[in-house]
Amino acid sequence: MSRVELGDFTPDLDVYLGQAAYLQLALFESLGRAASIAPSTRAKALTGLIATSTLERHRGLLREIERSGGDPADLMQPHRSVIDDFQRRTGGGDWYETILATYVAAGLLDDVFSRLTAGLPADYRDRVVEILESDAEVDEAEIVAELSLAIGADPRLASRLALWGRRLVGDTLLVARAAISASHQSADDERLEPVFTELIAAHTRRMDALGLTA
Amino acid sequence: MSRVELGDFTPDLDVYLGQAAYLQLALFESLGRAASIAPSTRAKALTGLIATSTLERHRGLLREIERSGGDPADLMQPHRSVIDDFQRRTGGGDWYETILATYVAAGLLDDVFSRLTAGLPADYRDRVVEILESDAEVDEAEIVAELSLAIGADPRLASRLALWGRRLVGDTLLVARAAISASHQSADDERLEPVFTELIAAHTRRMDALGLTA
Repeated sequence: MSRVELGDFTPDLDVYLGQAAYLQLALFESLGRAASIAPSTRAKALTGLIATSTLERHRGLLREIERSGGDPADLMQPHRSVIDDFQRRTGGGDWYETILATYVAAGLLDDVFSRLTAGLPADYRDRVVEILESDAEVDEAEIVAELSLAIGADPRLASRLALWGRRLVGDTLLVARAAISASHQSADDERLEPVFTELIAAHTRRMDALGLTA
Repeated sequence: MSRVELGDFTPDLDVYLGQAAYLQLALFESLGRAASIAPSTRAKALTGLIATSTLERHRGLLREIERSGGDPADLMQPHRSVIDDFQRRTGGGDWYETILATYVAAGLLDDVFSRLTAGLPADYRDRVVEILESDAEVDEAEIVAELSLAIGADPRLASRLALWGRRLVGDTLLVARAAISASHQSADDERLEPVFTELIAAHTRRMDALGLTA
């Protein structure tokens, strides 16, 4: 892969872990709400499975925070306002929108956090990569299968979700930018341009997998 | 322990697993909502930890359903109305009430499901006991610590939660009765009386642990 690395960004370990851990916690919240409005028991069970992986990533990151001697709540606190605001704007009006939001946000932001691991201290890097990648692909495949089925059966849902996806990517990129900026003081737009191009390309592939135009 | 056993109740495996799995999924939903209204980042992180154990129990039970050749959504479906109705009535008005509800419901109903394992086929029994007991005590200790702190600092919260706890126990016992009845056709009140006495005694101990009168 010739993807642009964020490896010369050297995130502050505390900032990185607090932000990544809080993001997973926020995704779990959205999934809890999604479960309560799931259109079927199968959709609800799928929501539970995705939430399980999300919370396992969260717990893994908390373990790294504890290993580093930090306090999880203290390190997550500074990231609440950006991420909570993101969650409010991308909560979604029904189960499909909420699940698409977690699919888009988790896909794009896990990608950002994975790239930033290159700049972490060596003794944390491999463990964090493993935490972030655990179950992610299985979850994506399950979401794609369930949403594709619903999209195939309802053209109006397809166009509604395509629109929703376009709105989501803008909001998600703002959080991505905040995550990158927090890890590098001179994260100017010009240097980040190729990174964002790649993030958007990956987003387009994820929407394509659903049969939606990004 | 001289506790009254439900061992002569021989639950239908499919009914038992579907019901227990759906309960854990419903508790996760409540915890997701609780996380979104947590009064602090620490409370939110605690909510995430409890939800992780809840979802791990859920996933463990789904594995047993798959092992038995059943379909998880099909087996959970019949239990939605009783448990969803319970969740609606015991959702709680703030984080403290929601967390108390999950503490009371998880405590009492996990106790019921643990007792019913005695009547499960031998090759499922031990694994299900292990699934139900994993992390339960750690979670209870964490909840007690966090709620006790808040209760100690605010006498009005203490009296509100004591009242709430009394309402919860009635609603929770209805679900317990449904769970037991589903596993035994002649689950008449007289035979169940000593079981309910013990469940209430355990509930009283859980409320005592918070410094609340049951």
